Amino acid sequence: MSQEKSFHMTPDEFRRCGHAVIDWIADYQSRVESFPVLSPAKPGEVRASLPEHPPGQGEPFAALMKDVENLILPGVTHWQSPNFFAYFPCNASGPAILGDLVCSGLGVQGMLWSTSPACTELETHVLDWLVGMLGLPEKFLSSSTGGGVIQDTASSAVLCALLAARERSTNYLSNEKGCDGRIVAYASTQTHSSLQKASMIAGIGGSNLRLIEVDKNFAMRPEALAGQIAADKRAGLTPSLVCATVGTTSSNAMDPIGEIAQVCREHNLWLHVDAAMSGSAMLCPEFRHFQKGVEFADSYNFNPHKWMFTNFDCSCFWVAERRALLQTLSILPEYLKNRATESGSVIDYRDWHIQLGRRFRSLKLWFVIRHYGVEGLQHHIREHVRLAQQFAEWVRSDESFELAAPVPLNLVCFRHKDGDQVNQSIMDGLNRSGDLFLTHTRLGGELTLRVCVGQTHTREQHVEKAWQRIRQEAQRLAVV
Amino acid sequence: MSQEKSFHMTPDEFRRCGHAVIDWIADYQSRVESFPVLSPAKPGEVRASLPEHPPGQGEPFAALMKDVENLILPGVTHWQSPNFFAYFPCNASGPAILGDLVCSGLGVQGMLWSTSPACTELETHVLDWLVGMLGLPEKFLSSSTGGGVIQDTASSAVLCALLAARERSTNYLSNEKGCDGRIVAYASTQTHSSLQKASMIAGIGGSNLRLIEVDKNFAMRPEALAGQIAADKRAGLTPSLVCATVGTTSSNAMDPIGEIAQVCREHNLWLHVDAAMSGSAMLCPEFRHFQKGVEFADSYNFNPHKWMFTNFDCSCFWVAERRALLQTLSILPEYLKNRATESGSVIDYRDWHIQLGRRFRSLKLWFVIRHYGVEGLQHHIREHVRLAQQFAEWVRSDESFELAAPVPLNLVCFRHKDGDQVNQSIMDGLNRSGDLFLTHTRLGGELTLRVCVGQTHTREQHVEKAWQRIRQEAQRLAVV
Repeated sequence: MSQEKSFHMTPDEFRRCGHAVIDWIADYQSRVESFPVLSPAKPGEVRASLPEHPPGQGEPFAALMKDVENLILPGVTHWQSPNFFAYFPCNASGPAILGDLVCSGLGVQGMLWSTSPACTELETHVLDWLVGMLGLPEKFLSSSTGGGVIQDTASSAVLCALLAARERSTNYLSNEKGCDGRIVAYASTQTHSSLQKASMIAGIGGSNLRLIEVDKNFAMRPEALAGQIAADKRAGLTPSLVCATVGTTSSNAMDPIGEIAQVCREHNLWLHVDAAMSGSAMLCPEFRHFQKGVEFADSYNFNPHKWMFTNFDCSCFWVAERRALLQTLSILPEYLKNRATESGSVIDYRDWHIQLGRRFRSLKLWFVIRHYGVEGLQHHIREHVRLAQQFAEWVRSDESFELAAPVPLNLVCFRHKDGDQVNQSIMDGLNRSGDLFLTHTRLGGELTLRVCVGQTHTREQHVEKAWQRIRQEAQRLAVV
Repeated sequence: MSQEKSFHMTPDEFRRCGHAVIDWIADYQSRVESFPVLSPAKPGEVRASLPEHPPGQGEPFAALMKDVENLILPGVTHWQSPNFFAYFPCNASGPAILGDLVCSGLGVQGMLWSTSPACTELETHVLDWLVGMLGLPEKFLSSSTGGGVIQDTASSAVLCALLAARERSTNYLSNEKGCDGRIVAYASTQTHSSLQKASMIAGIGGSNLRLIEVDKNFAMRPEALAGQIAADKRAGLTPSLVCATVGTTSSNAMDPIGEIAQVCREHNLWLHVDAAMSGSAMLCPEFRHFQKGVEFADSYNFNPHKWMFTNFDCSCFWVAERRALLQTLSILPEYLKNRATESGSVIDYRDWHIQLGRRFRSLKLWFVIRHYGVEGLQHHIREHVRLAQQFAEWVRSDESFELAAPVPLNLVCFRHKDGDQVNQSIMDGLNRSGDLFLTHTRLGGELTLRVCVGQTHTREQHVEKAWQRIRQEAQRLAVV
């Protein structure tokens, strides 16, 4: 038997190759600042370096790692560089990488409680921990009427919220009969585009997502929301969900959750709170005023993979009434039936999201929380906020630049006073230089630069250098 | 600056802790057969072992790994045990684990081409490789009108196919106006439950998914499909998609794709081919007759994370007309605009699936293909099929047992002739013993045992032992 032919890696080969990969990553971490942050690769360049056909025979592991170094790395945009200030961050950290490695090694598929009880129970446990850590209402606890689940992304989370809202508002009939073109959802003009995508996916229709106007701080105007809902009701439509955002993607605007919640309660609408980015700040009690009113939310979402040092993908989603979610997404074919499920005493997370299969994602989240402790997480969040506020102060005191929006936390929206083209040129020049990477948005029609201070390893020196380089680039343009 | 307080792992700490995790996984691989395959944990047992509150201060890494060993492992069902014969497998392998580790280490978020060109281009490249490796039509190549993308699961893939079909059949108006309750999709009674879930999610409605009857081999009857479509058209409904399966979950039935495709072409319906499990067999030319007619498919899906030794999640999805998919799922807010996207010369994979964010999943797939080579992959697939056929032969020649369905590849559906209760007892007894793990389905109303030979490390000795233990358990029951 033992001489059966095998192409598999033996445990000893795995040990040897695995050490080499770990060493490669440790080295990558040490030299990440030496690479241009935004990859300078041209379209098609990476592909052109790859062989046209797959190998007939297996190759030695060292050849793979050599190609990662020589062919892949030049095509990587370095999200793990401390000079990454673009979009929102997508953090990794040592404990998260290793927690994810344990997940890969165990290779568990946790669709049902019984397919690995630890996968389900650790997830429930850590999400219950986070309810307290973020100051969320007790109704989100698994011991109450609600509960939490790890989704891949906030896009999937808001889709699940929208589906549950759709069903609740139609007495759970849309699932059976399909949508009727009369279901309506609400968000602000600044809400993340994923809700528009979700409205299309859910059969509600993009035109039935009402984008409510915002105030001068880019926050939703509750009275405009109330007016739109009333108009829709008069038109015989079926309002279902309102999405309020704690920290919009464009400018980190904070929707007034409490007032929005009041409107929702009047009309019995599902209130989803999207705190994908800024939820991590709620680890610090002094920032929780930004989510005042969250006790009225029907669902809540934040992404540890953004700003809580946990590798992508890890998006935490809570509901106040798990029954609504389960009634929306539950399916039980014969081949998945088992005694534990039938007993009703366990959670089967397949009923909490779009997918059936699932990884053991709570391991990395657990590793992060235990490695840092609440104290360590708070420290780094506060430090990022402090650095962003300092950056905002520099912008304020420079007469060539201006802030374009309030800076509640760690995102600074600003612009050079000389208009769109100068701002575009500053951004393009800096990104091409490789020294840092920042992106833009439009606020009040004007091109606006965004600097988000949130990458795991971003420290004072990186933020200082970023501001220096921005001013330098502006001066260089002024001379030319 | 260097004395700034930090709770992060340094590269050197990462190296040390990382080696320890690699060693732990190598050891796990060596001793995986020593654990009961199905976890014997009782509901709540794992949670009860965890502290009620998160740690205020960080903990040493060794404490985390100690808890993985002592608290988590007893709650794990060992999908990576060679004695795992349940459901369909969810394979891991050395190169896949390490490819995924590189992915975690780089921490790239590949939503756009520009956010890491290598992430997009390697994915396109490997999916083009697989078109040839699986004998799929050239229209699926990125150089043609189509293209491939890695999704998380087959559930998401079929949802995307259904959405694209929904839009194509309604002139891309459902996205805008919402569904109207008149869109219809088709599958067999044996099609995976994810299509039912997708119909609910997509606003089509569960009752608008027609489950077409099957023949004695549990394959869809094309004439029944044609009849139903005609009836629906007469009723003024809008037929949109047909899902044909290469290897159903319940019994590995093979829908006649060619004949179904003909019906689809007559009525201009989208044909999705779900080969989630059995697609891996198409690596071997001698099995490709099972997907005869695939050249007429509008989309195709298979899961390397099932039977191609690639860690979950990795589900490959191709479309013949990428325009239809893009027109369905594309959204472009200001903050994601960039020069590469505007040039039209690159793929932005965020428009190819539900989520916005995405990992660098092609790394693990690339590692697997290069480590094994086409030859190595074919060898192990053929070996699994050979072992399943051998098992089927043993069932056939045992007078207490019977086969319950044809055995085209590596899934054996069989039962003890003494009826449901005996089969249930055999299964429960074996699963409780920890020696192996198998699950059930119902075929023709009768409880049927399923043995799927597909776990990465399953070899002849494990299949022999499984059959021995099954007979033993049956004999033990007969005596009692």
